[in-house]
Amino acid sequence: MITSSNSAELYNQYQSAMRRIADIRYASAVLQWDQETYLPPKGAGFRGQQLATLSEIAHEEFTTDKLGVLLQELSSRHDLDAEQQRNVALTLEDYNRNKKFTAAFVRHLTEVINKSYHSWIEARKANSFSVFAGDLAELVKLKKEEAEILGYQHHCYDALLNDYDKGSNVQLLDKTFDTIREPLKVLLQKIQGRPQVNNSFLQQHFPKDKQWDFGMQLIRGLGYDMEAGRQDISEHPFTTNFNSLDVRVTTRIDVNDLGNMVWSCIHEAGHAMYEQGLPELQYGLPLGEAASLTIHESQSRLWENHVGRSMAWCRHYLPVLQQYFPEQLQAVNAEQFYKGINQVTPSLIRTEADELTYHFHVMIRYELEKALLENAITTADIPTFWNERYMKYMNVKVPDDKQGCLQDVHWSHGSFGYFPTYSLGSFYAAQFFTMAEKSIPGLDTQIQKGDAHSLLSWLREQIHRYGRMYNSEELCKKVTGETLNISYFLQYLQRKYESIYA
Amino acid sequence: MITSSNSAELYNQYQSAMRRIADIRYASAVLQWDQETYLPPKGAGFRGQQLATLSEIAHEEFTTDKLGVLLQELSSRHDLDAEQQRNVALTLEDYNRNKKFTAAFVRHLTEVINKSYHSWIEARKANSFSVFAGDLAELVKLKKEEAEILGYQHHCYDALLNDYDKGSNVQLLDKTFDTIREPLKVLLQKIQGRPQVNNSFLQQHFPKDKQWDFGMQLIRGLGYDMEAGRQDISEHPFTTNFNSLDVRVTTRIDVNDLGNMVWSCIHEAGHAMYEQGLPELQYGLPLGEAASLTIHESQSRLWENHVGRSMAWCRHYLPVLQQYFPEQLQAVNAEQFYKGINQVTPSLIRTEADELTYHFHVMIRYELEKALLENAITTADIPTFWNERYMKYMNVKVPDDKQGCLQDVHWSHGSFGYFPTYSLGSFYAAQFFTMAEKSIPGLDTQIQKGDAHSLLSWLREQIHRYGRMYNSEELCKKVTGETLNISYFLQYLQRKYESIYA
Repeated sequence: MITSSNSAELYNQYQSAMRRIADIRYASAVLQWDQETYLPPKGAGFRGQQLATLSEIAHEEFTTDKLGVLLQELSSRHDLDAEQQRNVALTLEDYNRNKKFTAAFVRHLTEVINKSYHSWIEARKANSFSVFAGDLAELVKLKKEEAEILGYQHHCYDALLNDYDKGSNVQLLDKTFDTIREPLKVLLQKIQGRPQVNNSFLQQHFPKDKQWDFGMQLIRGLGYDMEAGRQDISEHPFTTNFNSLDVRVTTRIDVNDLGNMVWSCIHEAGHAMYEQGLPELQYGLPLGEAASLTIHESQSRLWENHVGRSMAWCRHYLPVLQQYFPEQLQAVNAEQFYKGINQVTPSLIRTEADELTYHFHVMIRYELEKALLENAITTADIPTFWNERYMKYMNVKVPDDKQGCLQDVHWSHGSFGYFPTYSLGSFYAAQFFTMAEKSIPGLDTQIQKGDAHSLLSWLREQIHRYGRMYNSEELCKKVTGETLNISYFLQYLQRKYESIYA
Repeated sequence: MITSSNSAELYNQYQSAMRRIADIRYASAVLQWDQETYLPPKGAGFRGQQLATLSEIAHEEFTTDKLGVLLQELSSRHDLDAEQQRNVALTLEDYNRNKKFTAAFVRHLTEVINKSYHSWIEARKANSFSVFAGDLAELVKLKKEEAEILGYQHHCYDALLNDYDKGSNVQLLDKTFDTIREPLKVLLQKIQGRPQVNNSFLQQHFPKDKQWDFGMQLIRGLGYDMEAGRQDISEHPFTTNFNSLDVRVTTRIDVNDLGNMVWSCIHEAGHAMYEQGLPELQYGLPLGEAASLTIHESQSRLWENHVGRSMAWCRHYLPVLQQYFPEQLQAVNAEQFYKGINQVTPSLIRTEADELTYHFHVMIRYELEKALLENAITTADIPTFWNERYMKYMNVKVPDDKQGCLQDVHWSHGSFGYFPTYSLGSFYAAQFFTMAEKSIPGLDTQIQKGDAHSLLSWLREQIHRYGRMYNSEELCKKVTGETLNISYFLQYLQRKYESIYA
């Protein structure tokens, strides 16, 4: 029982407990970062064990009855300020969510995820989805159980979608994808009827060290604070953070493809600048965290596409690139460069897709996950479902499972409901960027001069500093005056591709 | 109360608890490694907090009553094997030791250490020991309290010495240093009466990347397993381990001094190969740890001095170095190189001292610590005490505190009793290496061929695989048939310097 009646004191107790849990979780994140960047091969086994222990301890500490009592008591206090109330409310939600799962359920889920991840690796080696289908079926069954435990109003998928974007649901996503499916198909057909653009200049030999140096200059130039972060090399680019003053990015370098490094650098820097902009004083508390994975993605996409694939960006950065790679790029002008980096081509691999067809990749995964959760299909049906939709939406024939339904790691991690954040993030990015253009006089000219400072300040002020104060929808309304409106995204695409494909 | 009567089951419980604690401690070590190598500057504050939390949790878990009851029960079981019994006995010792300190004492000590460390930094900036003397006095007082809490038989310093080398004590150290002081002084005088050797070839410009490449080839060549470790750059070279399959080293590179990198690489690789040779299956248990810091130092010194400063090593590695640095080293032959790298000169800085005068540096620190703990001097007397002994033992005039009594970080960390392990480690190294030479036919010829494989195997077999099964003295007796006998070290030095200084 709580005897102290001083709310400030109770809030301090709550804050200390949360910071201790954050210390453990972020220690875990350091170990994971190390695992992806510098871990010697033989160290993997013990590292897995160390990570499991830290996650167990964090879970134990976040589910103590003492914390529950404290949160209940704080929820009833009316002398906390709005930010404090929001922190307590969100923590209580997270706490209650965690308490719903028995230790046995969590352990079983972890085991099945481990098993699934390994069979996904094996399936990719064998290039055969059937190697993965059995374990995935077990995992899907558990995720359905999880949804039942969590509870939902309309659709069991909603419970899982909420994990990545609180407030997201099937109704909203169906409506969104239904609105965008046809316009995107029409736009794609139009583009395919026009003379195609050339991007072969990106596929030449670009030495690794020069690419690295350019990438470092690039992310510094965007506003990523190198004193509060660093860049390293990893197999798959990612952003991770241990607090807002230590937010790290990684990239990968393909010596035969410049694009791979350049736009992954901008994408990750977009994520990282969001984390660097979160309020330091809210460390360990919800308001010190990103609003949602959707809003996170809106920041990376905004920088990657609205800045990094704009004509203004090309005008500034092509000359810089030409200094690094004179031989390879001397014959390319800014307009050719702009067109080349925005080439639209239906393709097999989501992560390499252009800004238009990308959303077909996401839709297919969304539709597939929904069908699985509705029991409309089983995991054995996935390859057929997948291949049919690729043909239907993009006229793409999938040659094998590795380039098809085995390409993403997400399902093997039990991440069902994650993919939609990629599309929603893009849609929010377009809406935010439209607002930024209205609010910042001469933004395009600034970007053309390589100066993104006022854009970053605007994002910091409008979005970053709030942490989880608002959910995606609330934040969007606050920033742009309306909830998600995908016409901004459609208009952006139409305008862009009209200029490129005449 | 323990109800289960199955010893194997109880032992498993003990092992699981210890592994969980090890996971937390090694996670902490990863964060520290990152702090010394890759941490962005602004991340230091939160990192300190994260480390404090992990160390608090590890302490909490290692002092639970449940673990105490389990250890007591296991100590009374007679159906454990010798290794299991030794693990339990050592853990119980460590447990009881930890339980002696109240949480308040530990917190206070941590605070005073933090404060002292910062005033040491400030004192070095101001080049004035008096800035540090006050906080250090507080720390010395606490260390005396610590010694009283721990208890001792003859001298309060013994309680602290035990922390680094169980069984070490003032009586043994006095005897050891008394035996060696005069012979070393005599040897130094003899050397100073002979024509001096030239090592100026080490002080040229050696490009950083070439030094790095040589260092990597060097430690690989000694037998350091790069698949179970890695090398990075840090301000001060160190070795750290997260398990025997992930043991990392760092080095530093001075472009104007080749020696700095070369022998620090060999030294750290010596530490690291010991850790890589500890039994993997004993992870988290005493038998998975090094016997003592003295034995640890014996391994680094053995490789650094007995291998890395031998004529045989020079014969193999000078030609290799000449390939990396043809201009700088083409005019040097193996004999000149050997003489140069073994130059004896009384000097100010311990870490840069030769194999002979090094022990004067250690003796001075030992005598000073003992005098402090005996209340024979106060911290305010340290500069005078220090400077007088440097003059007395080595005829060296100390120009200022920074190059004098402010040079080592140890005291600011509260590490009193650490320095003697450096000398004892060297003495053990000589004794072990003499035994290795006897046991491995053709060892010198092998080293001359750049092959240290059989030496590493011998050390693995004789020393590494035992972990903490034996303390320093027991291990020495097991390996060499007698306890520490410093005549091996004296003979080694005399023989070496006779050949160099004729």
